[in-house]
Amino acid sequence: MSLIVHKYGGTSVGTPEKIKNVARRVKKVKDQGDQVVVVVSAMGHTTDELIDLMNQVTDSPDPREYDMLVSTGEQVSAALLAMALQASGCPAISLTGGQAGVVTEDIYKKARIKEIKLDRIKEELKENKVVVITGFQGEDSKGDIITIGRGGSDTSAVAIAAALKADVCDIYTDVDGVYTTDPRIVPEARKLKYISYEEMLELASLGAQVLHPRSVECASIYNMIIHLRHSQKEVDGTFIMSPAQILKEVGKMEKQEAVRGIALDENIAKIGLLRVPDRPGIAARIFGALAKEKINVDMIIQSIHSSGQFADMAFTVDKPELKKALEVAEKIAAELKAEGVVHDRDVAKVSLVGIGMVSQPGTASKMFETLAEAKINIQLISTSEIKISCVVKAADGKKAVQLLHKAFNLDKIIQ
Amino acid sequence: MSLIVHKYGGTSVGTPEKIKNVARRVKKVKDQGDQVVVVVSAMGHTTDELIDLMNQVTDSPDPREYDMLVSTGEQVSAALLAMALQASGCPAISLTGGQAGVVTEDIYKKARIKEIKLDRIKEELKENKVVVITGFQGEDSKGDIITIGRGGSDTSAVAIAAALKADVCDIYTDVDGVYTTDPRIVPEARKLKYISYEEMLELASLGAQVLHPRSVECASIYNMIIHLRHSQKEVDGTFIMSPAQILKEVGKMEKQEAVRGIALDENIAKIGLLRVPDRPGIAARIFGALAKEKINVDMIIQSIHSSGQFADMAFTVDKPELKKALEVAEKIAAELKAEGVVHDRDVAKVSLVGIGMVSQPGTASKMFETLAEAKINIQLISTSEIKISCVVKAADGKKAVQLLHKAFNLDKIIQ
Repeated sequence: MSLIVHKYGGTSVGTPEKIKNVARRVKKVKDQGDQVVVVVSAMGHTTDELIDLMNQVTDSPDPREYDMLVSTGEQVSAALLAMALQASGCPAISLTGGQAGVVTEDIYKKARIKEIKLDRIKEELKENKVVVITGFQGEDSKGDIITIGRGGSDTSAVAIAAALKADVCDIYTDVDGVYTTDPRIVPEARKLKYISYEEMLELASLGAQVLHPRSVECASIYNMIIHLRHSQKEVDGTFIMSPAQILKEVGKMEKQEAVRGIALDENIAKIGLLRVPDRPGIAARIFGALAKEKINVDMIIQSIHSSGQFADMAFTVDKPELKKALEVAEKIAAELKAEGVVHDRDVAKVSLVGIGMVSQPGTASKMFETLAEAKINIQLISTSEIKISCVVKAADGKKAVQLLHKAFNLDKIIQ
Repeated sequence: MSLIVHKYGGTSVGTPEKIKNVARRVKKVKDQGDQVVVVVSAMGHTTDELIDLMNQVTDSPDPREYDMLVSTGEQVSAALLAMALQASGCPAISLTGGQAGVVTEDIYKKARIKEIKLDRIKEELKENKVVVITGFQGEDSKGDIITIGRGGSDTSAVAIAAALKADVCDIYTDVDGVYTTDPRIVPEARKLKYISYEEMLELASLGAQVLHPRSVECASIYNMIIHLRHSQKEVDGTFIMSPAQILKEVGKMEKQEAVRGIALDENIAKIGLLRVPDRPGIAARIFGALAKEKINVDMIIQSIHSSGQFADMAFTVDKPELKKALEVAEKIAAELKAEGVVHDRDVAKVSLVGIGMVSQPGTASKMFETLAEAKINIQLISTSEIKISCVVKAADGKKAVQLLHKAFNLDKIIQ
């Protein structure tokens, strides 16, 4: 008998009919003799509708009341799913985050989960029930309802699965799994059977929207296997697990592909500070000021100027934050007596991801060659142990992905 | 400094604009230096919409999941009202029934309130906040969400007011108060300034839809003054209180009107069992069988037949229950070898209510005379200490009310 956690997103529970579909799916697993815990998001656009109501009442909502308000969305879908399960003859009970023992920090809207007290969940499982839990929320030490921020329901599911030592956490979405790259850009993109937490984390933060990085991080800490799969299809999706677990699954991994996925992020803009005096503490000044304004900076490249006394600083930010970031940059540039600030919205970031890269040093040069042959100019480069990212002209982004996908034989990947 | 409990029904919080109106009203009271606790219902048709979703998922909903589902409606309006108050510069916090310490029996959908643990409410009041509490719900010993059935939010408000020893419980609705009779039937109907719990209870169960009998009963136990008033008007409505409290308010009550209100119930049907053998236990057989089918029987009249060996049994039920009641009656009649069963849908019940009646024996005969003069035939009569009800032809109902209203000078009532 296995213990399995399912997570269904808002689209999968968007209508009563879809909720009944989910119930059928869950019941099937239950009927095989497994124990099932289900974590659900709010139905379809419920959360947006609640926020719309809120905006008609106030333009500066109290975070506590925000949580009180939006948490109702998951409560509705959890109760409906429990009812649908019962109607199909499958014993079930719904629990709020608080009832399920999900204890969070005392921070509204974006708390992290502190612990999960399993008594109630275990008691209900023992009574042979499917336990349906509201995602995205828990309770703080005062008994107040707390939501856990972006990507919340995925994280709830993984955390609950980890606490329960579940065999696997099935996350149902509207995609088939994780692909070597976006199939809309490269029709030959292949679905990966396995991907490591680290690779998934990189892909997720590089723009692959399938799973929130936070839930992957949580899974990696507890070695919780995530099975990302399509809610309307019976076939396997992609298993997200540790390299050791993958090794166990595939038998031998003597020669894994160096590159496992390619991500394209077209939502970035580039900012450059030219001829900044090169002395200690400069980077801290610049990026400290940006952090204070809560601007997320991604790539940072500092290039030493030929004179040795100056450096050029370049970094990327998300496009919507460009305006704010430029204001900060201009101010800092003036203070530092830098030569000026330049920026470019027409850029895209192409990234290769794969934990095999670290042992195959030729990867970077092959990437640069491939782009050079196609006369795609590289504006910025940054590398990590499992990732190489290049910023190129926006117009070259998709082409770069297509060429690299072929060059690294990702269209022939089998696992 | 007074402590006041406000209760707003679904219509009063039906839109964001109306919620802002309520916030203005509450703030005004708060600004006068009073402490305010607000109990809210779900917005407009929210509960019906949730039930509609539910019906699409199952036709036999689990009561526990039903409570989990519908309780979200009040949570939404409570959070929105707290936000609206804050936006208007008035410190506020919303609490679920459970958070507010409303402890109920362990019975889903129709629990009674067992106690109210006041710690959290008092703590928030001390911090100078308006406390907004979800009506209609509490938490059981397991921490599960429980709704408290029909008339729930009114009862929540009264119970919370009683526990807090509030000075008054203001129940805001879309009517001006309690009238001597339905103003749609008698344009001269007067708004009562005061009415006793007992009278209000009778009027409420006789079809005056303004307040649920259960909340009146709760108020009477704790002598909690209810001020029933219009949510869009500043004028006083009707105060519902004990005769002693009324006496204190009006100074002297030497000669109170015997009749304080007239109710018309057109939603009834009459059933008669003819020539039932008159022996002990017969009534128990008939009404036991009806009770078993959960059919609410109202008036019961047993008339002894001239022979002395038989009795006619007549009773009234709500129209929608007539069919079911007839089936039971036919069956019992056959068993008892009664002569037959008759029924009549075209009836209405006219009732006079007033605690002064008990000391003014002429009331009943004046009622009968008034109806007789207008050639209105009385089919059934039943009396209690503070009420006289007559069943008449449906077509005569409104006319009877109009005549009686005039005959008892209710159009000249001043308090």
